[in-house]
Amino acid sequence: MRIDLLPTAESIVPAELAGRIAVVFDVLRATSTIVTTIAHGCRRVVPVVAVAEAREVAARLARENTPVLLAGERGGQKISGFPHGNSPLEYPPEVVEGKVLVLTTSNGTRALNGAADGAHTVLVGSLLNARAVAREAHRPGRDITMVCAGTQGQSSLEDTLAAGMVVLEIMELAGQDSSYSNEKTLSPDLSDLAVAALYLAQAYRDNPRRAFDHSRHGRKLLSMGLAADLDWCASLNTCQVVPVVKKEGGYLFIENFSCV
Amino acid sequence: MRIDLLPTAESIVPAELAGRIAVVFDVLRATSTIVTTIAHGCRRVVPVVAVAEAREVAARLARENTPVLLAGERGGQKISGFPHGNSPLEYPPEVVEGKVLVLTTSNGTRALNGAADGAHTVLVGSLLNARAVAREAHRPGRDITMVCAGTQGQSSLEDTLAAGMVVLEIMELAGQDSSYSNEKTLSPDLSDLAVAALYLAQAYRDNPRRAFDHSRHGRKLLSMGLAADLDWCASLNTCQVVPVVKKEGGYLFIENFSCV
Repeated sequence: MRIDLLPTAESIVPAELAGRIAVVFDVLRATSTIVTTIAHGCRRVVPVVAVAEAREVAARLARENTPVLLAGERGGQKISGFPHGNSPLEYPPEVVEGKVLVLTTSNGTRALNGAADGAHTVLVGSLLNARAVAREAHRPGRDITMVCAGTQGQSSLEDTLAAGMVVLEIMELAGQDSSYSNEKTLSPDLSDLAVAALYLAQAYRDNPRRAFDHSRHGRKLLSMGLAADLDWCASLNTCQVVPVVKKEGGYLFIENFSCV
Repeated sequence: MRIDLLPTAESIVPAELAGRIAVVFDVLRATSTIVTTIAHGCRRVVPVVAVAEAREVAARLARENTPVLLAGERGGQKISGFPHGNSPLEYPPEVVEGKVLVLTTSNGTRALNGAADGAHTVLVGSLLNARAVAREAHRPGRDITMVCAGTQGQSSLEDTLAAGMVVLEIMELAGQDSSYSNEKTLSPDLSDLAVAALYLAQAYRDNPRRAFDHSRHGRKLLSMGLAADLDWCASLNTCQVVPVVKKEGGYLFIENFSCV
């Protein structure tokens, strides 16, 4: 088994994901929000790239009498005219249970769509469900690509960290020792960026919230008064759900793995 | 002071380096070779992007009676017709003392030229001289960009590691504690990729050679029988030289910092 890591949504080449399991991370905040809504009983999340398309999809679902929530952000702010934003704290069970969430965000929904164009299976990862994702992704004979959404075309600390947490859990499932830098070979086989992610995960494992204080996007959200969101997104291994991306009628949708 | 990190030669935007100190890393093997030749008394290294241009520059210098060595590699192999390759072991003092080395390599010379197009000062970094580079680069009021050459457009473990070693030395010079993941703020201020490099450096500090066993390009060179080169390039903080890039008559050249 081999584990690769893509640093940004822009670095996705769908053909290179053929036959692989892709795990998509946009920790602040798209994939943390998706994991939260699914954990809280949301029936389905529809990830949409463009704002206009999100409005159309939500309107169509409403016409079909599907209970729908229209949600999204650009630049960390709720989109004008959208009833819901990209904060996981907006979605307690009483809000999302049984609903369909149509979501468009700056980086995360692009990464989900790009990964779904190529990979055999696309899972939605975050710090919240890193261990649960590792258990699903660790399948002998199937290579894995960690797809970090990044921020505006650049690698982000928080996405690389969450990808590293999944790598770390997989290494432990595979029985590899924790003093990786002393081992002649690593098993599973890790790409250069996956190795860097592994050590990030070791460094912040006991205090993942601190990584958001050290990340560019984390500090931006803090300056916008979103500390409670960061606290939520840093809750390592508190969710057991593994959202998986599927296609239907040309649209992507996300449901809990066990439901599909 | 702020420290940024560019993962590949392709990610260099010269205008974004304005006013900054850039430190260029192509650990396997261009910058390790440059540091070695300068430490062994080489008068000057001329880094050239194209093979044909390297031949021309070497011929011109020879016509001017400058003692010159023509050196280079593509794909890790010596270039056909070139008397010298890109191995640091080819350049003991008796070979290079007082000579000018004209060098073209796959990634490193492109990164040096790209950095020189924008930065205030360009230093040549490697594991060999990480501490010496940190002492020169740590100047209050001047931001630093670690420029990793990478391998074929992708981030490489060994370049990120060496950049991280310089970051680690600068953090220590600045008096920052070593339990970085517990600190609310880091000083100097680090970009997301510089943080990841810092933890790589902590992980491999006691055994930097092991990182080459975990890197794609390191394993390729090992399979080509270049283990002795890797051992040499992993010798952390054994050289005190800090090669600096200058321009003259449209050509770049590299000399030891104290000589310029």
